[in-house]
Amino acid sequence: MRRTWTEISFADLPIREDLRLHQAYGAPQLDVPVRLNVNENPYPPSQGLVASIAEAIAEAGANANRYPDRDFTKLRTCLATYLTHDTGVYLDASQVWAGNGSNEVLQQILQVFGGPGRLALTFTPAYPMYDEYCRTTFTRLHSLPRTESFAIDLPQTIDAIQSLQPSVIFLTSPNNPTGTALPIEDIQAILDVAPGIVVVDEAYGEFRRDGVASAVTLLPCNPRLVVSRTMSKAFKFAGGRVGYCACAAPIIEAIKLVRLPYHLSVFTQAAACAALAARDEMLSQVATLKAERDATVSWLRQQGLQVADSDANFVMFGRFNDRHLIWNKLLRSGILVREIGPSGYLRVSIGTTAEMVAFRDALSTAMHTG
Amino acid sequence: MRRTWTEISFADLPIREDLRLHQAYGAPQLDVPVRLNVNENPYPPSQGLVASIAEAIAEAGANANRYPDRDFTKLRTCLATYLTHDTGVYLDASQVWAGNGSNEVLQQILQVFGGPGRLALTFTPAYPMYDEYCRTTFTRLHSLPRTESFAIDLPQTIDAIQSLQPSVIFLTSPNNPTGTALPIEDIQAILDVAPGIVVVDEAYGEFRRDGVASAVTLLPCNPRLVVSRTMSKAFKFAGGRVGYCACAAPIIEAIKLVRLPYHLSVFTQAAACAALAARDEMLSQVATLKAERDATVSWLRQQGLQVADSDANFVMFGRFNDRHLIWNKLLRSGILVREIGPSGYLRVSIGTTAEMVAFRDALSTAMHTG
Repeated sequence: MRRTWTEISFADLPIREDLRLHQAYGAPQLDVPVRLNVNENPYPPSQGLVASIAEAIAEAGANANRYPDRDFTKLRTCLATYLTHDTGVYLDASQVWAGNGSNEVLQQILQVFGGPGRLALTFTPAYPMYDEYCRTTFTRLHSLPRTESFAIDLPQTIDAIQSLQPSVIFLTSPNNPTGTALPIEDIQAILDVAPGIVVVDEAYGEFRRDGVASAVTLLPCNPRLVVSRTMSKAFKFAGGRVGYCACAAPIIEAIKLVRLPYHLSVFTQAAACAALAARDEMLSQVATLKAERDATVSWLRQQGLQVADSDANFVMFGRFNDRHLIWNKLLRSGILVREIGPSGYLRVSIGTTAEMVAFRDALSTAMHTG
Repeated sequence: MRRTWTEISFADLPIREDLRLHQAYGAPQLDVPVRLNVNENPYPPSQGLVASIAEAIAEAGANANRYPDRDFTKLRTCLATYLTHDTGVYLDASQVWAGNGSNEVLQQILQVFGGPGRLALTFTPAYPMYDEYCRTTFTRLHSLPRTESFAIDLPQTIDAIQSLQPSVIFLTSPNNPTGTALPIEDIQAILDVAPGIVVVDEAYGEFRRDGVASAVTLLPCNPRLVVSRTMSKAFKFAGGRVGYCACAAPIIEAIKLVRLPYHLSVFTQAAACAALAARDEMLSQVATLKAERDATVSWLRQQGLQVADSDANFVMFGRFNDRHLIWNKLLRSGILVREIGPSGYLRVSIGTTAEMVAFRDALSTAMHTG
C-alpha cells in the first residue's frame, strides 16, 4: 500500500542516524509582555533609522532582479570601519566577513577547518549552537568544564590543547550563558599553544565592562585568530540577521570555498549599511543597558543569590532548588526568562528600566511565596 | 619568528585537505552593458512594487531589535498560496520551507539525508553547486551522463539507482545548463525505485512550455519527493535571495534539525511577502521571456547551431571549436554570456527584446569574422 504525503511520518524518513534523536534548537517564542529570554536589545530602532533603512532598501530593491554583490564589499567596509572605531585596531574590508547571523559565519569556519577526523574544543557551560555546528560538519567535539566561577582553567586547557590538538577552539567572551569575559592574557596563552584556528565569539563584546579588552586587539599578532561579532545585540538588529567576523584576509579567502554564493541579500546588505551609518544612535543605549545590568547584578546579590560576573547584556543567577518552578512563576507574571545554564540557574536578559522593575518585583514574589 | 596577520598566506592555513585545491564558485561579475550570464530576469521590479517592499520593510524594521519568526509562517503561507496557484495542487504552510536562496534549502536536504557513508546521484551536465553541497556535507557524489539530447537515460538510471541505492537523487527540470525539462513520467519512474529522497529542482519551473507538468503535481502521491523553487528567476527577485521547497510536512520537521535558527531575516520575510502579493506583476514578463526564448532557439537553429530544447529562461547552444573565442568576442561587444556546459557550448540568458537583438547581432559578427 503506497502512502500519500500526509500519511508519512517523521519516523519513516531516511534521516541521518546521528541526527534522528535530536530536537530542533530554539528558545520558546512565547507572546508575553516582558521578553527577557533571548538577549535581545529592548530598544527598537528610531523612526529616523527605520526611514533610512527603508530608503536604502527601496534603492537596492530597484535592482532586485539582479544578484547581489557576492562579496558585499560595501557592507564589509562599513563593518571594518565600525570595528576600527570600537577597538582601535585598523581593519579593512578584506579582513571582515559576514553571514546571516554569526551562526552562519561560525558554521562556515567549521566547514573549512573542521570536518571528519578533526576536533573542536569548547568550554561548558557554552552557547548550545556550538554542538550543532559540530554535528552538522561532522567535527568531533570535546568540552572542558569551566571552573566554579565560570572561568577557564588555563593549565588544564593548555594540557588539553597539547594532547588533543584541536583544529578549532571556541572561546566565548563574554560567555553565554554565564556572562563572564575572559582575561585577554588567557586568550593569548591559548593562542600560543593552539595548533589551529582559535575563534573568540564576542557576540556580546560591546557590553564588556571598562578595562576589558576586545580580542580584536590580538588580531595583528595572531594570524589564526578569528573574532566573531553580531549586530543582533548591541546594534539592536536581531531581526536583520547580520553576524560577522574579523580575521586575516586568507582565512576569508578560505571561507569563500564553502560559502553558498550570494548568501547575503541586497536587502540585508543595504539595511545593515544603513544601521552601521547610524552607529551612534544604535549604540546609544549600550551605556544604559550596562548600568542596568550592573544594578541587576547588585540587586540579585542582595537577595542572597549567586550571580556570575557579567560583561554581557544578560545575567545568570541561582541557584534554585527548582528553577523550573521559579521560571514558571515569572512566566505567569508575564515575564519570560531563560531556563539555561548549570543546574539551578536562570538567565535574564537586560530589558528597559521598566521591564527590570517588573522582573525584580516578580522574582521577589516568586522567591517568597509558596 | 612569529608572523603577523598580514604575513600569513592561504597555503599556511589548516584548511580541510579535500577542500584545499578547490576554487570558490561563482560566475565572473563583470560590469558590461548586456548581462546574459546568470539567468537573471532582465525586468526590474516596478516603482509601485519597490514602494510596497519598502513599506513592508519599514513596518518590519520597527521591531528589528527582536529576532524574526523562526518558522516564518506568514512567508510560508504566501509561498504555499502561490504554488497552489501555479500548479493546481493544494499546499499549506506546513508543506513549504524556504532559505536564503535555494542553495541553502538544497544544502539543508543533504545535511539531513546525506552525509558520510551516503551517496547522492546527479546527472551531468548539471548545476555545478550540487558538487559543492555534496563536498560540504561529505556526501559521496555519483553522476550519470545525460544522453546526446540531454535527456535522462531511464533504463540506465533505474539500474544505477538499484545498484547504488542513493540517499538523495537530484533531478533538475528544466535542467541547468541545458534548459531541458524531464517528462513527468520519467520522474515518477525514478520515484518508483528510489530508496531515499528525490529532489526535483524547478528553479526555472515557471518558464516551462505549455503541456510540461510541474513535479509539484506528483507530491501528494510521493511522500519522499521534494520540489525546490526560487524567487530569483521568474519572480525577478534574485537580489532578495529566497529559495523554497514543497514536500511532506515531516521532511520540513527534519530540516529544522539542521537549519540555523532565525536564518531568514525580518527584511527577507517582509520583502518576499510583498513580492508574492504582487504576483501578477512579478510574473507578467514570464510570457514575454518565454516568447523571446522560443524565438532565440529558432534563430540559433537557423544559424546552423545545435540548440538544446529549452523550458527555461536561457538557451544552450554550440558547438564551437573554440567557445572561449566566441565568448570573448561577445564580451568585447559588451555582451556577457556564460562559458558553461559540454565542450563547445555556450549558455545565454534571455534578456529584454533589445538585449536579444544586440546578442544576435554580436553573435553573427563573432561567427563570421576571424
